[in-house]
Amino acid sequence: MNAIVQPRLEMWFDFASPYSYLAMERIHALAEPAGVRVALRPFLLGPIFRDFGWEQTPFRLFPKKGAYMMRDVARLAAKYGVPFREPTEFPRMGVLASRIALLGQDEPWGPAFCRAVFRENFEHDRDLQSPATLAPLLARLDLPAVLVEQAGRDEVKQALRRQVDRARERGVFGAPTFFAGDEMFWGNDRLEDALEWARGHASPRA
Amino acid sequence: MNAIVQPRLEMWFDFASPYSYLAMERIHALAEPAGVRVALRPFLLGPIFRDFGWEQTPFRLFPKKGAYMMRDVARLAAKYGVPFREPTEFPRMGVLASRIALLGQDEPWGPAFCRAVFRENFEHDRDLQSPATLAPLLARLDLPAVLVEQAGRDEVKQALRRQVDRARERGVFGAPTFFAGDEMFWGNDRLEDALEWARGHASPRA
Repeated sequence: MNAIVQPRLEMWFDFASPYSYLAMERIHALAEPAGVRVALRPFLLGPIFRDFGWEQTPFRLFPKKGAYMMRDVARLAAKYGVPFREPTEFPRMGVLASRIALLGQDEPWGPAFCRAVFRENFEHDRDLQSPATLAPLLARLDLPAVLVEQAGRDEVKQALRRQVDRARERGVFGAPTFFAGDEMFWGNDRLEDALEWARGHASPRA
Repeated sequence: MNAIVQPRLEMWFDFASPYSYLAMERIHALAEPAGVRVALRPFLLGPIFRDFGWEQTPFRLFPKKGAYMMRDVARLAAKYGVPFREPTEFPRMGVLASRIALLGQDEPWGPAFCRAVFRENFEHDRDLQSPATLAPLLARLDLPAVLVEQAGRDEVKQALRRQVDRARERGVFGAPTFFAGDEMFWGNDRLEDALEWARGHASPRA
């Protein structure tokens, strides 16, 4: 006899990515009524872009595209009712926050932590690497301050590098990227289609 | 006294662009009930990509992105109910067809001609430069065969070059690109938002 497994959608994201922010603001509210479980997968876009020979985000390499992107994100944020202020640092370094997010990616506190980090970047325009940002953020979420130290351990650094390798192996070239099983969807614009795909293709298990 | 001018949306496109094909299949059916007038603006992406230092479409320069794009277009085509076959030549040369489209861009036959050319590329996988494709296409639409000759005249070649220059000046970096007044929207994904913007911002005229 087969039982239907709950549909599941992975979201791969980088804290510097404005479209990842928009998707993070929306995914849980859309996934819950659809009965889809969300798995958050923080990674870093920098090494992926370097594979393309880009030493920078394409939004800086191609300034026309960068200017358009900020305007596009502002318009979408207004449409979604999501706060947005163009960060004074872009792309903003978020390695420490990504390591903490990795520790929490399958923990109940993961989503709230990720949403809060994105807000620091795209609503409050704060330095994500600074203890002055992360310490109060953890406190507000009732999370232990020691997470910052834990995130600095070698095994966590290596785990984040392995996560980037997995992204590369799966063909990820931007963020956010969603996976419903092996089906890949790129961009905040595909969140609805990805959820629909996850619902329609929930794998039966023996 | 002010009179409201009918809202107007420009669509800038390249016949080689799969997302331009999807948008061309959809735009008139969406614009008409919305009361928005569509202005088609054929141009060539090649010279724009060369401004970025790309001697090729990014979909060939970055094969991961190219593979994903074809999958994405196939999924969207299925969702929209639009026929799609991956062309055996990509990107397909469409300069001659673009020149004819330029001659027709403000003529009543323009939209039907453009839709037919896109279908040759993305439904029937036919060479767009060949008289064996264009002659029967013009005949089917009751258009004069002499358009092919007219499109080869120097002034038409120059007019297409000027159209590319205008695209560049307006900040176009990909296709399709929509303009509602000066507001720019990039990509088939933004067609609905662009139409909404055009409706909401119709310029009053004295």
